Amino acid sequence: MNLFLSSVSFILYLVAVCQASGTDIALDAKATLLHRIDSLNLLIYTCLLTLTVLTIWVFKHRRVSWLHETGLAVIYGLIVGAIIRYAGSTNQVTYINVHPAPETKYNLSVPPDMLRLHFPDKMQVSSGDAPVPNKTYAYSFRGEIVNVEQNEIDLKATFDPEIFFNIILPPIIFHAGYCLKRKYFFRNLGAILTFAMVGTALSALVIGALMYGCVQLMPESLATSFTFLDTLYFGALISPTDPLTVLAIFSQLKVDVNLYAMIFGESVLNDAVALVLSGAIQNYELRYSNDGGFEITAFLGAIGDFIGIFSLSLLVGALIGCLTALMTKFTHVREWPLLESALFVLTSYAAFLIAEVCELTGVVAVLFCGICQAHYTYNNLSSDSRNRTKQLFELLNFLAENFIFTYIGVSMFTFPKHHFDPWFIIAGFVTSTLGRAVNIYPLSFLLNLGRNPPIPMNFQHMLFFSGLRGAMSFALAIRNTVSEARQAMLTTTSLIVIATVVLQGGAATHALAYLRIPTGEGGNDESDALPYRDVRSDTPRDRGDGVSGQKARLARLWGAVDSKLLKPLLTHARPPLTETLPAFLRPLARVLTTTHQYTQGDNSLRRTDSDSDLCIDDQHAVPTSIDPQLSINVRNGYGHV
Amino acid sequence: MNLFLSSVSFILYLVAVCQASGTDIALDAKATLLHRIDSLNLLIYTCLLTLTVLTIWVFKHRRVSWLHETGLAVIYGLIVGAIIRYAGSTNQVTYINVHPAPETKYNLSVPPDMLRLHFPDKMQVSSGDAPVPNKTYAYSFRGEIVNVEQNEIDLKATFDPEIFFNIILPPIIFHAGYCLKRKYFFRNLGAILTFAMVGTALSALVIGALMYGCVQLMPESLATSFTFLDTLYFGALISPTDPLTVLAIFSQLKVDVNLYAMIFGESVLNDAVALVLSGAIQNYELRYSNDGGFEITAFLGAIGDFIGIFSLSLLVGALIGCLTALMTKFTHVREWPLLESALFVLTSYAAFLIAEVCELTGVVAVLFCGICQAHYTYNNLSSDSRNRTKQLFELLNFLAENFIFTYIGVSMFTFPKHHFDPWFIIAGFVTSTLGRAVNIYPLSFLLNLGRNPPIPMNFQHMLFFSGLRGAMSFALAIRNTVSEARQAMLTTTSLIVIATVVLQGGAATHALAYLRIPTGEGGNDESDALPYRDVRSDTPRDRGDGVSGQKARLARLWGAVDSKLLKPLLTHARPPLTETLPAFLRPLARVLTTTHQYTQGDNSLRRTDSDSDLCIDDQHAVPTSIDPQLSINVRNGYGHV
Repeated sequence: MNLFLSSVSFILYLVAVCQASGTDIALDAKATLLHRIDSLNLLIYTCLLTLTVLTIWVFKHRRVSWLHETGLAVIYGLIVGAIIRYAGSTNQVTYINVHPAPETKYNLSVPPDMLRLHFPDKMQVSSGDAPVPNKTYAYSFRGEIVNVEQNEIDLKATFDPEIFFNIILPPIIFHAGYCLKRKYFFRNLGAILTFAMVGTALSALVIGALMYGCVQLMPESLATSFTFLDTLYFGALISPTDPLTVLAIFSQLKVDVNLYAMIFGESVLNDAVALVLSGAIQNYELRYSNDGGFEITAFLGAIGDFIGIFSLSLLVGALIGCLTALMTKFTHVREWPLLESALFVLTSYAAFLIAEVCELTGVVAVLFCGICQAHYTYNNLSSDSRNRTKQLFELLNFLAENFIFTYIGVSMFTFPKHHFDPWFIIAGFVTSTLGRAVNIYPLSFLLNLGRNPPIPMNFQHMLFFSGLRGAMSFALAIRNTVSEARQAMLTTTSLIVIATVVLQGGAATHALAYLRIPTGEGGNDESDALPYRDVRSDTPRDRGDGVSGQKARLARLWGAVDSKLLKPLLTHARPPLTETLPAFLRPLARVLTTTHQYTQGDNSLRRTDSDSDLCIDDQHAVPTSIDPQLSINVRNGYGHV
Repeated sequence: MNLFLSSVSFILYLVAVCQASGTDIALDAKATLLHRIDSLNLLIYTCLLTLTVLTIWVFKHRRVSWLHETGLAVIYGLIVGAIIRYAGSTNQVTYINVHPAPETKYNLSVPPDMLRLHFPDKMQVSSGDAPVPNKTYAYSFRGEIVNVEQNEIDLKATFDPEIFFNIILPPIIFHAGYCLKRKYFFRNLGAILTFAMVGTALSALVIGALMYGCVQLMPESLATSFTFLDTLYFGALISPTDPLTVLAIFSQLKVDVNLYAMIFGESVLNDAVALVLSGAIQNYELRYSNDGGFEITAFLGAIGDFIGIFSLSLLVGALIGCLTALMTKFTHVREWPLLESALFVLTSYAAFLIAEVCELTGVVAVLFCGICQAHYTYNNLSSDSRNRTKQLFELLNFLAENFIFTYIGVSMFTFPKHHFDPWFIIAGFVTSTLGRAVNIYPLSFLLNLGRNPPIPMNFQHMLFFSGLRGAMSFALAIRNTVSEARQAMLTTTSLIVIATVVLQGGAATHALAYLRIPTGEGGNDESDALPYRDVRSDTPRDRGDGVSGQKARLARLWGAVDSKLLKPLLTHARPPLTETLPAFLRPLARVLTTTHQYTQGDNSLRRTDSDSDLCIDDQHAVPTSIDPQLSINVRNGYGHV
């Protein structure tokens, strides 16, 4: 607590210094001050995270389970945000209005990138004694000012929202893809895809429509400031779930792996879906300006956008993942684990950048890159690199996740563009709950028609209950806060995130008990005793259900392609391509098969398969000073060819 | 090569798009374009680093030793920089001159943070058909324009110089501190401190004076644009050495550890010294504006600045390191390695930030924080965290180092503020060589008066030869490029870095052979056969040499404090404080001693000492798929209390 109080008192000192010496402060000192404020902001979050880490340790040590680390981060953030808000005075930004110089010629219809201001020119400056020398200063473009009266920009403890999309989210999403338990993910692929794709779109639509209705009923100016597209955008951004807290408890209590896989898989994919969906809504908005009408061609265009951007981003990510697998298979870079790990990190980051450069969605690319890296590349890595990359992304994920939740707490008080509207907030809470219900129950009913065994009712309740909102919702909400409507959305989203993470997350253990969902050793392995065991049985109960039958055929086809073509091509797995490819492709197959693939026994196929090596939250489940995965990896590490 | 060519062709495409649709491009599309250019810049460097990693692997595989990875990074950077420069057309920034609105009142003597521009106002915009709507845009402060005629700002493949100090250098410096072989470092502390502190200052002074003389002799306008402080600043920034290449070859060929320790230790410390020194010179400059005169009080003030900032930064770093040691000793956070690693990373970063907030030097703080973390905290960490933090910083260091050298290559062509002056460049090469000689030979002579055994002549030549320039010189040179003098310095520094890293680095193996410095197994351990073995013998040959005698006493005192007070207090090492503290402090000592310290046997003291666990460039020396340190760590890991 000391570190944190001292940083707060330091802000006060800074603010005081800045105000006291306002008239004679040199420009250079001002630049230094800005740098120090930046450093101080970072320091506040660093100290908050340190505090969170220490408190989590105390909680784990005393086996407190009603508060997860993200909930804790939010609460600490709220406390510090309140102190910063009410303790320090506002360090406001100075501005003046300018006009172009009379002789200016300019041949573009977009505003210039830079302005050059002669200061103080003929302007009167009340600096008292010393005359201010005339100098030229450069100013660079920041954006349009919509509301000219109200643009207080505050330097305190806020960051550019774009850092969430470019720095904080990529490692979180990559880690989710890299640590996906793919066996259970693919077993429940039908349910996961239905909930994530159809469910998120449905939820967005329902929330958007309900909110639009609510807003129309409100007796205030709010009604006119929201278009249907605005509420639809709100629906899209509040739909993705982020059940970190629930999943941590699941892995602690060893809840059924299929339930775990459904909740985790859905939350990973619906982040990606919501991001692309909100992008498509914005594109629609851009194309048809702000009339808010509903044009069928534009609607189809938005759907086309959604499908195109999602699948192209997926493709970019998957291709980069496969390229990395090829590089690690056909070079001996595994002899130098440092180089290998660097290569792995660089190509994964390149997937994000390539997608962004091509105007696709980097987050989606990095998710599927992560899945491919885990499915193929991981098998080619040296044991040192496996361990290193796993630990690196685990740490990055931990820091990024806790940073974003701390920021949600702090920004609740310090971010200057909040707009509290009680009716909108209440409507937001109600509709987001309804949206989650519409996502789960009807779709579960439909899924159960073609599923054997069906998803039991208590699992459906748990799926509904796991609809916590998190990082992606917040990042989307804070990205654009120009209008009052968007500011009301940010406030509501922040409150929903805080409430669900702290309250719903805290009640997860009780919910499990209340819903009588089995926990303990029996739940978390494949042994038996659960009715929900044999999902992969490839014979759908209802053969008449065409979609389900087709999906099963698709899954079988994919399984065959994966095990006969992709795995032998991209990894050292058996059977080699020379056995699986048709005869006329044998020469090519021979080139693409390594000596290692020929010489290894069939049994090593199982042992080097990565799925069992990768699991989430090992540290949470098994408190030990020696990572159990480590010894497995070391044991499995085979000599280089 | 394909990735890289495709990214270059993509630039061409982008530039073409940008020019073709120049008149009707929407503002939003422009923001997207800027984001894409940012992503593209990052992508270029990511691909370059990937290429470097793959080429290094080929070189290591084929045992090519005449080109180190940093040399390779520079060369690839140069090639790509040249292609970007000569293939793409310039995507110039647009600007207009503005004046304050007539009615403006402004009550500060510093220019405002923001300007609000009504666009297009009454200005004529030649957008052809459509009228441009009047909107208000925000512009934020960037800096002073000194040379109004020439301020082309280029968006291509350049970054804000501050990122070097805030993002790239801290992990490099921390890693250097964390991986220091402290046993040999402390054995040679006298020589290292002399070379790093006295030597760097001396070298800066000699280079500054010689350059000032050279500049005065030049028959050009350059003579008037350089003050003595400018050339002194050049001396300070070109003095720190960065012998990465040489050290990699040393560890490959197992050269004498004391020579290794001297070269590495000096290069670590002289980075910190040069940074603080250049800051002190700039402060001096700020205080006494630009007359370039030499005032004795200001000079003493600068020396005071130097000593104060250096020692306070050291203190901040060391305190944070010790605080982390206490946290890891007295909590059981080691049971959750993820939390422990996060705590370690956060506190280390906090050391940097706290120093920056207090207007000290973050880089110096992070260096000494790294040394303390290695000396104390490392012993308290779980084996998983030891491994994880070591690997994390190794990877960060690798990526940061190669990024900066790639950037040096690329920026040679793309950075718009280069100023090629052949005489200044030649003078820079000659004086920097002389400066290195002045650093090594006279100081070695003085050291040898009080040293037993003395530093042999071939070691002195090798020390001289290891004076490659690197990351710190470049970062300091590119930080400030407002004047022509500073631009000439940047160009000269870049060329010196490139030449020394590529040529001198490439010739290191031959230099070792030519100087008959022993290599092989005998050189890299303490066994015997070398005359240079027993440096620690605490009896200086010349008892009359007061300084040396005092230094030895200081070293003994420090050793006693360290082993009897600090190690027992901050780690689980024996003997416990209850045995070493005087009787009246026993109750306190009992509180500060853990059960583990009482119960462990004396022999575990040696085994958990971290020094032997930490060494640099393991991956380079021992190509193996299983990190040998790993198994040692796992073996040494003792159960938690």
